Amino acid sequence: MAPAPPRRAADRLVLGCDLAATALFALEGATAGVHAHLDVFGVLVVAFATALGGGIVRDVILGATPPASFAYARYPLTAFVAGFLVFLFAGPVRDIPTDVIVTLDAAGLALFAVSGARKALDYELNWLSAILMGVLTGVGGGVIRDLLLNRVPGVLVIDVYASAALVGAAAMVLASRRGMGAAQAMVVGGVLCFALRMVAYLAHWNLPTGGF
Amino acid sequence: MAPAPPRRAADRLVLGCDLAATALFALEGATAGVHAHLDVFGVLVVAFATALGGGIVRDVILGATPPASFAYARYPLTAFVAGFLVFLFAGPVRDIPTDVIVTLDAAGLALFAVSGARKALDYELNWLSAILMGVLTGVGGGVIRDLLLNRVPGVLVIDVYASAALVGAAAMVLASRRGMGAAQAMVVGGVLCFALRMVAYLAHWNLPTGGF
Amino acid sequence: MAPAPPRRAADRLVLGCDLAATALFALEGATAGVHAHLDVFGVLVVAFATALGGGIVRDVILGATPPASFAYARYPLTAFVAGFLVFLFAGPVRDIPTDVIVTLDAAGLALFAVSGARKALDYELNWLSAILMGVLTGVGGGVIRDLLLNRVPGVLVIDVYASAALVGAAAMVLASRRGMGAAQAMVVGGVLCFALRMVAYLAHWNLPTGGF
Repeated sequence: MAPAPPRRAADRLVLGCDLAATALFALEGATAGVHAHLDVFGVLVVAFATALGGGIVRDVILGATPPASFAYARYPLTAFVAGFLVFLFAGPVRDIPTDVIVTLDAAGLALFAVSGARKALDYELNWLSAILMGVLTGVGGGVIRDLLLNRVPGVLVIDVYASAALVGAAAMVLASRRGMGAAQAMVVGGVLCFALRMVAYLAHWNLPTGGF
Repeated sequence: MAPAPPRRAADRLVLGCDLAATALFALEGATAGVHAHLDVFGVLVVAFATALGGGIVRDVILGATPPASFAYARYPLTAFVAGFLVFLFAGPVRDIPTDVIVTLDAAGLALFAVSGARKALDYELNWLSAILMGVLTGVGGGVIRDLLLNRVPGVLVIDVYASAALVGAAAMVLASRRGMGAAQAMVVGGVLCFALRMVAYLAHWNLPTGGF
Repeated sequence: MAPAPPRRAADRLVLGCDLAATALFALEGATAGVHAHLDVFGVLVVAFATALGGGIVRDVILGATPPASFAYARYPLTAFVAGFLVFLFAGPVRDIPTDVIVTLDAAGLALFAVSGARKALDYELNWLSAILMGVLTGVGGGVIRDLLLNRVPGVLVIDVYASAALVGAAAMVLASRRGMGAAQAMVVGGVLCFALRMVAYLAHWNLPTGGF
């Protein structure tokens, strides 16, 4: 009974992470949808898929069905409201500086990566798969968005993004295995992911590509 | 014991809906496959994916595994037979008037949307997710078909289609929650979806797009 | 107790098949990724998806969650190591003769097709769906690879490939239903798939396409 409070704190942190990042990612997905001249329905679909697609695939893989995104109406509602606001105010949204969007996105990525890896650990997946689930939760929605918009997923060709999710999720998993509390390990992993992504953005880091 | 008969009637209606719409959607998917110069195997794959893809994803999300499309051989058999007929008789199929195809497709959409939402309610999903499952069942196969054929899913850019599924599924869910019997609620939702889709087609309705 | 050894032999055969084919398919996926100028992360993702995507979708459909590819770290590790080797040695990999690659690929296809169908039978799916699961396991990873690289899945437009998986899986399922032992039935189906694929490659067989 004693260890229950820390566990609940971690649960609340996971929930807060999920909802905040859901709104952020939905906003970005909807913006891509408006750019691609989708109708209002299409914009909402892309907002939904970008925000919740990664977590849905994660939950289906974990066998956690129905996924949290469907089990609780708050997730799709959050995504749809954020998507609809972008649809209504496309002009002002376009005027948001890129730096602000990249910063918020890095925060969302960090939140998704560590909460996704955390859930995989709760389902007793091995360390490697838990890290993969973190990466999937972080970048899966963006991949689905790009597939829907018929382009090569940006995460496969552009700079340090998925790798930041990988490092953050790995740090969280490692810290958890070495006995750190769930909430603290998530903070460590999340901060590391966010910092790495921002440094890479500001310093124009890129991963090497292979040559033929 | 007393309420069993209405429940069984709804079950039979769901089964009939599924098989009829499966054949219709497989026919359309196969036609798109022949147009894209796929070989006979590719045509059957696209017929299968168009007809059953939405329901498979729905069942995986609901945790209803293996999905009905695999648990019962009648579903893939129906899709493959319809697809193979299109492959053999591509010429006559091309000559079917567009109005006929759109009308049959609207019927299939209505059937899938209400049966998908019904199944989600049977699995005790919340109202919003049940509506989303109806839309997914109705348009998911077409989205997968378009992804396989490497184009932006038509449902994201063209006129009132997914919205009709949305309205029909929502009407069904609302009617069920207000106490209407399952079979009747499905008829109400299905008729509404079909009517809305046909009016939109005949009157060239479109959804607004956002502007940058 | 007596029948346990043959069962275990089949299990070991399934495991060996999976790991060998995983490495082969990851190598091919990574090669496609390097050709598409992906960064090292993208190459690993495509290697992973090509090698394990079909099996993951199969397991999700069967309700065997978490899929074997995540339940056991040896699968992703195998895929990542093979993918990373291709990334490091892209030049030498390019110089491997096409005939060698096609031959190894045919072996991998045969292994995946029969082990996928076998697993579906173990989950008591009907004969048709077991065959479909074999085809899905064999070609699913390649389809996901092509979707990620934004092209029409090759398996839908090119020569006898998926059909070979179909014939091999069907032979395995048929032999099993007629009482043949699991391991023997897998050998029969696998050899048939491999032989058909190689003959089709060497003799330039193609499937007919429909005409409009």
